Amino acid sequence: MAKQLRAEILCVGTEILLGNITNTNARDLSVYLSELGINVFYQTVVGDNPERLTEAVALAKTRADIIITTGGLGPTCDDLTKQVLAKAFGLEMVFHEEIAEEMKRYFRETLGVTTMTENNFQQAELPAGCTIFHNEWGTAPGCAFEVDGVHVLMLPGPPRECNAMFKACAMPYLRKLSDEIIVSHSLRIVGSGESSVEAKLRDMMNELTNPTLAPYAKEGEVQLRVTAKAKTEAECETMMKPVLDRVCGILGDIVYGMDVESLEEVVFKLLKEKQLTIATAESCTGGLIAKRLTDLRGSSEVFRGGAVTYATDTKTSVLGVPAALIAEHGVVSGEVVREMAVHAREVFGADLAVATTGLAGPDGDGKNPVGTVFVALATDKDVYVSHIASGMGRARVRILGSSCALDMTRRYLTGLPVVVDYYKK
Amino acid sequence: MAKQLRAEILCVGTEILLGNITNTNARDLSVYLSELGINVFYQTVVGDNPERLTEAVALAKTRADIIITTGGLGPTCDDLTKQVLAKAFGLEMVFHEEIAEEMKRYFRETLGVTTMTENNFQQAELPAGCTIFHNEWGTAPGCAFEVDGVHVLMLPGPPRECNAMFKACAMPYLRKLSDEIIVSHSLRIVGSGESSVEAKLRDMMNELTNPTLAPYAKEGEVQLRVTAKAKTEAECETMMKPVLDRVCGILGDIVYGMDVESLEEVVFKLLKEKQLTIATAESCTGGLIAKRLTDLRGSSEVFRGGAVTYATDTKTSVLGVPAALIAEHGVVSGEVVREMAVHAREVFGADLAVATTGLAGPDGDGKNPVGTVFVALATDKDVYVSHIASGMGRARVRILGSSCALDMTRRYLTGLPVVVDYYKK
Repeated sequence: MAKQLRAEILCVGTEILLGNITNTNARDLSVYLSELGINVFYQTVVGDNPERLTEAVALAKTRADIIITTGGLGPTCDDLTKQVLAKAFGLEMVFHEEIAEEMKRYFRETLGVTTMTENNFQQAELPAGCTIFHNEWGTAPGCAFEVDGVHVLMLPGPPRECNAMFKACAMPYLRKLSDEIIVSHSLRIVGSGESSVEAKLRDMMNELTNPTLAPYAKEGEVQLRVTAKAKTEAECETMMKPVLDRVCGILGDIVYGMDVESLEEVVFKLLKEKQLTIATAESCTGGLIAKRLTDLRGSSEVFRGGAVTYATDTKTSVLGVPAALIAEHGVVSGEVVREMAVHAREVFGADLAVATTGLAGPDGDGKNPVGTVFVALATDKDVYVSHIASGMGRARVRILGSSCALDMTRRYLTGLPVVVDYYKK
Repeated sequence: MAKQLRAEILCVGTEILLGNITNTNARDLSVYLSELGINVFYQTVVGDNPERLTEAVALAKTRADIIITTGGLGPTCDDLTKQVLAKAFGLEMVFHEEIAEEMKRYFRETLGVTTMTENNFQQAELPAGCTIFHNEWGTAPGCAFEVDGVHVLMLPGPPRECNAMFKACAMPYLRKLSDEIIVSHSLRIVGSGESSVEAKLRDMMNELTNPTLAPYAKEGEVQLRVTAKAKTEAECETMMKPVLDRVCGILGDIVYGMDVESLEEVVFKLLKEKQLTIATAESCTGGLIAKRLTDLRGSSEVFRGGAVTYATDTKTSVLGVPAALIAEHGVVSGEVVREMAVHAREVFGADLAVATTGLAGPDGDGKNPVGTVFVALATDKDVYVSHIASGMGRARVRILGSSCALDMTRRYLTGLPVVVDYYKK
């Protein structure tokens, strides 16, 4: 039975504590460590202060098998990580001539600089007996050492260097420490809130330990992650299969994908697969559907274009929705959204078109409550209309309206009922 | 002399340790605390684990005057922050009927849901005697209490709620702990990179201590924050005035606003003031300009609508750009973008129109490098065309293209030269 390794990520840098930069290194390293089956129990950030760093290291030694530091390896007087860590583990610092040579080469060949200031050579000092992580992406080398069963790995602070060095040097070092791996799958859900999904799955979440099941709320949707730990990938998959099946059985077709980037990506792939194109006609979503589709690389293969007919008369002048129809039913109505979709399909010469009209707020129209959105999907044969009452919040109304349009498209393309009532809450 | 307060930010959430989300709350809170003159000495992240959270709180008590937690206030069984913190400080948990009522109202009026699952009411339990932070942006309330000189403030995990609650509730609470006040102003800059802004202002930043001057990079733009600490607001303003004047003198008209939300907000206000309307014709930005304008409440007063003419032929069929012109100059050209803007102005019946055509990537057109964007502004008299070479990165190219269109509009409406060469890098 493999020992369950515990890691602590210790990021060093006053700029993080001042909020000048977001600590993306902690996130990236957490992802990598989780993939390696190593549990991250703490992320700690301390400033460029030797006393507080020393205290943080002393604490980390008591609760982690692996300490990964980022930052503080550079040439300035603030860069103290190597010195503090070496001292905390009773190691001398040793000057490495070959590292100094490597740095000279980097300055000359990559930066085009021939003179280096003396402080740069501070970076060539490393704890005695360490494994050197050569830095091909910058100047400060990283390193790793082990004392009394605790492994210390030091990586540079700039995210690009930190990421590259982790993958190239730290990953192989850490793989040797564990004989278990972790595999996880992420289920994406649209059209239901986190607390409602959680209520349906709560008992299951509580009873599971390996694999585990956990929900994450994202803007306008929910994500569920199933994670297993075992000796092999196949074993992990076998353990996860019944859990995934059970979750999908409980939630049904509101699960729109597994291990996918986004709803728009799923729609994009379905359209591409079926060689169909799409157009948009947006009022309250104001370009958001088009923006989401064109966020994707290669979207020009399926997206013809769209009209943002924000002013009421442009629904007539640009799309050709009859003014009399708008006058009769009101601009926020199922009748108008239906015509918008039908006309957008023709105007843009697309196989499918989606349309939205609604009240994003804060002002209402005296007829429909704020948050009301009508969404339509026009195909070569039919037009489908959904009515959402998404509640308040301009950003939320717009996200849900755009997600509904994309999800109706997904449902149509996969043969599911296109209009479903779970949007009505 | 005011006591120098030390804060620790304690973020709770297994999703952070798994790397599923980036800890932007820690960064945002660090910025706010730094503005309040409170030193952040540690940021700590622990999972949804009561033992480790208890240990982290015990440690934080020994080294901080203020502990700010984020996350773990929600309705699920993983949400343990309030319980653990109350216990650590010897407080009972008390059920608040009015919080439960508030939540019911939020579910009914904002989410349009009339039945709440039982687990939601867990959120109405708070430590005895605490100051309640009502949550107008979600359901889980936050709170603050003080025991033995240590202040504990608990905020929700979702970044939008955490930020809003900090500003509305935690900020006033923390201001009372100090007899000095902090005032800051934020200058917003478009069309120049952070390192170029920083190079121009480096000496000034280094020599200033009160007020301070610090840059923050945001997607596609730079933000500079000037912060002063003194006994009164008037005193702070007097101290900041010469610094603000000097910065604006050095940077000139790339500073588009002070203490404003966004570039689109500035453009929206200018249009409204001058009672002018605008339309958009977008290719590579794919609806992003329309989306940014319609993110704003009241945008229908100035925004007529827009066309996302993504497929080349829709530039002709929807906008009326001559097909021969496109064939002659290529779809990514100054000539085509100029016609797109001119036609969009007519099609949508707007006073002004902006247009974009470019290569967001990853594919090029064999003629222009990826990252090339042509941007036009058509008015009743003239058409202005900018040429951006924004470098790689699909999201970046789209943001810079949309910002350029908005900035050209700002420059036109304020009588500045509309086309400037600083976009060419």
